[in-house]
Amino acid sequence: MSAGTNRTRELITGGPVIILVEPQLGENIGMVARAMANFGLSELRLVNPRDGWPSEKARAVAAKADHVIDGVKVFSSLEEAVADLNRLLATTARQRDMLKPVLAPDTAANLVKERMAINEKVGILFGRERWGLENDEVVLADEIITFPVNPAFASLNIAQAVLLMSYEWMRTSVDEGETRFETPERVPASRGDLVSLLDHLEEALDEAKYFYPPEKREIKSLNLRNIFTHAGLQEQEIQTLHGVVAALERRWMRPRGAKPGDERNTEEE
Amino acid sequence: MSAGTNRTRELITGGPVIILVEPQLGENIGMVARAMANFGLSELRLVNPRDGWPSEKARAVAAKADHVIDGVKVFSSLEEAVADLNRLLATTARQRDMLKPVLAPDTAANLVKERMAINEKVGILFGRERWGLENDEVVLADEIITFPVNPAFASLNIAQAVLLMSYEWMRTSVDEGETRFETPERVPASRGDLVSLLDHLEEALDEAKYFYPPEKREIKSLNLRNIFTHAGLQEQEIQTLHGVVAALERRWMRPRGAKPGDERNTEEE
Repeated sequence: MSAGTNRTRELITGGPVIILVEPQLGENIGMVARAMANFGLSELRLVNPRDGWPSEKARAVAAKADHVIDGVKVFSSLEEAVADLNRLLATTARQRDMLKPVLAPDTAANLVKERMAINEKVGILFGRERWGLENDEVVLADEIITFPVNPAFASLNIAQAVLLMSYEWMRTSVDEGETRFETPERVPASRGDLVSLLDHLEEALDEAKYFYPPEKREIKSLNLRNIFTHAGLQEQEIQTLHGVVAALERRWMRPRGAKPGDERNTEEE
Repeated sequence: MSAGTNRTRELITGGPVIILVEPQLGENIGMVARAMANFGLSELRLVNPRDGWPSEKARAVAAKADHVIDGVKVFSSLEEAVADLNRLLATTARQRDMLKPVLAPDTAANLVKERMAINEKVGILFGRERWGLENDEVVLADEIITFPVNPAFASLNIAQAVLLMSYEWMRTSVDEGETRFETPERVPASRGDLVSLLDHLEEALDEAKYFYPPEKREIKSLNLRNIFTHAGLQEQEIQTLHGVVAALERRWMRPRGAKPGDERNTEEE
């Protein structure tokens, strides 16, 4: 899978199945669908949604994640909802006294990827808004996922938890550091262009008595040249700075008392 | 910084400053505060919030992230809001024609960490709900952050974007793979205990004519022993399985037609 570039509008689908156990609010189901679509997940299952299904609220909040909403499957028990899955992970905010591996979301996302690569069907369980998953639901899972939250402020809502897992799915799928659009390539100007700018600047500064007293000239010049060299200027930027220096030169040549506006034509040339 | 363990209730604060430019809805500001608190960020600045400040809606939605809400600072221009910062990053979903490095959130979080480690004050800019940041706002930033989203479904709301950056701040702060509570340590039972269980099981299966015909006995026994050995059973689990086998043995010894309840006292012994 690739996140593509800004030029493509590829709709990414796939990823692990997301299973919500007894979700209460249609809005939350909609937010979950939207978060899944944001990061390329598409298969959503609901176990006994409190307010039934379909849900107009869910669709409204899902903001065009219709491919997720249309594909929702509803089950009357968790066992049925996970029957076809080879592997199951359960998200939980509380420590459980179960002998199951506890994974951070990034580790879990990599594990899901490894399993899906060998054609296992993988699902991730999310609990109710109010009290999460029951122990007899967690027990069905192979591993537990927990989020690295602030211990004193650990309440993630269900849509946020799905968002983070979906993000990790996408993040761990793209190449390290890859982004949707790229850092523009900087082509540094030639040394010659840089030197001509520095010469132009120094001429102007000479005129402005910047290099006074004369014994400071060398160190001041060196400092200036270091600053502009370090800036890694591009050719276009060099041209811009030539213009800046030229404008300042003209400013000094302007008769005292004249306002900048008087020379507008000259400055915009 | 450490995410601590489940035993502590440490309130983590700090991290980069979050700056929202002209946020429109108090609810979104509240969700942002909550997301920040979840992942240990605490300093929130607002530039010209549309509906003013303070906001009761924001506080209600923030769900007890009062330390963030109480600390909010409001500014009338972005320039004032970032005046004391040494470094600024801008989040954006659109490609900008600017010669700035474009970073993924994880790379950005690591960069923020490096800078804060050398005592730089760092801020992250988030734009308006409707149209994000203007170019003349992005231009103030040193780098651009963009999220690895589904190209065909790229709309993250402001609270989700802050959640993901805050999560990355926390994730990249804890040791790789560290979780708030740990995978319980499994202490495998001694081989002797395992063998006694397997012997017990085989006796029961002998009784039940499982090992029939006799020439299949060896392979069936080997397979069974492999299964239970591979399971990495702990001492307590061995005891549980002894109980299971014992119960099944009693079941066969139960007179035909007797109901399980007739033997309840025996089964619970």
